[in-house]
Amino acid sequence: METRRYVLASRPTGRPTPDDFDLERVDLPDPGRGEVVVRTVYLSVDPYMRGRMRDRASYAEPWAVGEPLRGGVVGEVVDSHADAFDEGDVVTGNLQWADYAVAEASDLTGVDPDLAPISTALGVLGMPGRTAYFGVTEVLEPRPGDTVVVSGAAGAVGSVAGQLAAMAGAHVVGFAGSDEKVAFLDEIGYDAGINYEATDDYRTAIDEATGGAGVDRYFDNVGGPITDAVFGRLNVDARVGVCGQIALYNAEDRPVGPRKLSTLLESRATVEGFLYGDFAPRFADATRRLGRWVEAGDLQYRETVTEGLASAPEAFLGLFDGENVGKQLVRVGPEP
Amino acid sequence: METRRYVLASRPTGRPTPDDFDLERVDLPDPGRGEVVVRTVYLSVDPYMRGRMRDRASYAEPWAVGEPLRGGVVGEVVDSHADAFDEGDVVTGNLQWADYAVAEASDLTGVDPDLAPISTALGVLGMPGRTAYFGVTEVLEPRPGDTVVVSGAAGAVGSVAGQLAAMAGAHVVGFAGSDEKVAFLDEIGYDAGINYEATDDYRTAIDEATGGAGVDRYFDNVGGPITDAVFGRLNVDARVGVCGQIALYNAEDRPVGPRKLSTLLESRATVEGFLYGDFAPRFADATRRLGRWVEAGDLQYRETVTEGLASAPEAFLGLFDGENVGKQLVRVGPEP
Repeated sequence: METRRYVLASRPTGRPTPDDFDLERVDLPDPGRGEVVVRTVYLSVDPYMRGRMRDRASYAEPWAVGEPLRGGVVGEVVDSHADAFDEGDVVTGNLQWADYAVAEASDLTGVDPDLAPISTALGVLGMPGRTAYFGVTEVLEPRPGDTVVVSGAAGAVGSVAGQLAAMAGAHVVGFAGSDEKVAFLDEIGYDAGINYEATDDYRTAIDEATGGAGVDRYFDNVGGPITDAVFGRLNVDARVGVCGQIALYNAEDRPVGPRKLSTLLESRATVEGFLYGDFAPRFADATRRLGRWVEAGDLQYRETVTEGLASAPEAFLGLFDGENVGKQLVRVGPEP
Repeated sequence: METRRYVLASRPTGRPTPDDFDLERVDLPDPGRGEVVVRTVYLSVDPYMRGRMRDRASYAEPWAVGEPLRGGVVGEVVDSHADAFDEGDVVTGNLQWADYAVAEASDLTGVDPDLAPISTALGVLGMPGRTAYFGVTEVLEPRPGDTVVVSGAAGAVGSVAGQLAAMAGAHVVGFAGSDEKVAFLDEIGYDAGINYEATDDYRTAIDEATGGAGVDRYFDNVGGPITDAVFGRLNVDARVGVCGQIALYNAEDRPVGPRKLSTLLESRATVEGFLYGDFAPRFADATRRLGRWVEAGDLQYRETVTEGLASAPEAFLGLFDGENVGKQLVRVGPEP
């Protein structure tokens, strides 16, 4: 059985280009005992993957040139040699950017198609949704009346983070990169949205959006000048959760900016980096809660979907241009 | 009764110069009911005072041009119109840079000359010692076996912070600016000292001083390139306490440096600014503990003393050249 799959053709310098991705055809190995063959339905592309294209140890292992790319997949079991799954079952796991993959059943999780659309296992009910959940509930811990700012607010993580902060009684302000995205923020319950492409004066924009109340909690997906501005507006005992720094991921030279630690003396703020994987023991609990809110209509989500495996590089690159509203997915094959 | 006192002659741009300070002679007002006249014995100069010379609200109020400078003073009550103090008592408080000052008794604290040299009320048993105490015990909370790095390690705060971290069972590494200071670090119980004037490769120096163990806790008095290097060596769940950023206080332009928030994703570190004043309800407890350690010989301290009120600007300016080992004081008059 043959499959197409993407490999890393070359390590990108600066912003990746389509030439950094090669689509190759290979024969799928025969599944062994305990393994299944998964037909990819949805493939997730995520900003953190840029780090894996670098030749540098980080929290995620670097990919080798010539090796297959991997990411979150939702797919259908089309051949099972494992007790855990039958043919026709929908599963999710970290698999290759491919039409088909052979996987250990123990590396997969079942997806219930009756609970929610299966694509949500890669978004609001998957890694991005859980990242937002842990960032808000464990790192930021917003209190009623707090002003919470979210950067990358219309993205897969930010859109959930803002809604969770609003549930906690906060006044929530989001930074996003277009009027369309700001309208989406309004729709999902943000109190205010700032189109950062329409202004250079982020501090004044924050003052207007918060009514001068300053910032008590900041969920940072972006870094760079937006984050600089928020640091200039932190209230006493503010908390900053650093979830991502997408504005910097493609930088060729070491990014520089104003030194901001002095602002922490005035604000006595706490800045904390957090990683999704550290919360693994509580993934199931997070998914259960998120699922209930989605079912009840209390948690909105949106997906931006490109069609076909061959669109995966373009979908990935679009993340850095902010082309996605909500979760960016690639539909590789039809839903079962 | 006449006194000399320093006023802010002009707002410094960049590094202050002696011309920014004017020594004037004025008549002391007559002390009212509840007030005392204090003869200054020691005057403290501290890095945070640079912030008060700026025309910009911060955690300490800016000084107006033409107004007297103020700082920590230990002095002798020479005329008392208050029940709390008799003539001859030694007191400490935040007073003018002057030979004499009239003060409300309620703004002063008594100093026991039998407990320790009275100068220590401005150093190891005063604001700097307590700052170190709260930074280590409340912000960093080092555990036995942790690697703790202190910048500005030989200064009034850093020298105490390192010793407290060592008491907590940590392996303590200090950055200081001369071989003399590194020898002082060795003397007071630091496990390793790095003379940052003798190397540009701070990361390798950290690796050598920690045996490659990385950094679990960082007490930052300095900021700038030393702090950049430490951020590159933070272990998972490291904590950074931001106490001061003296390397940046004289910057004319907005200081820039590498953007470091991405390193917090890998380390999941927490960075927290803290301010001495926030711990006011526990000052007495901190002083009691520090006093016991000093008395028992478990806590060492050193003072660098210039002579005469007229040396105060020079003593203050020397802080930014790292001329002080331990606490920088000005002896304004003889001890009682």
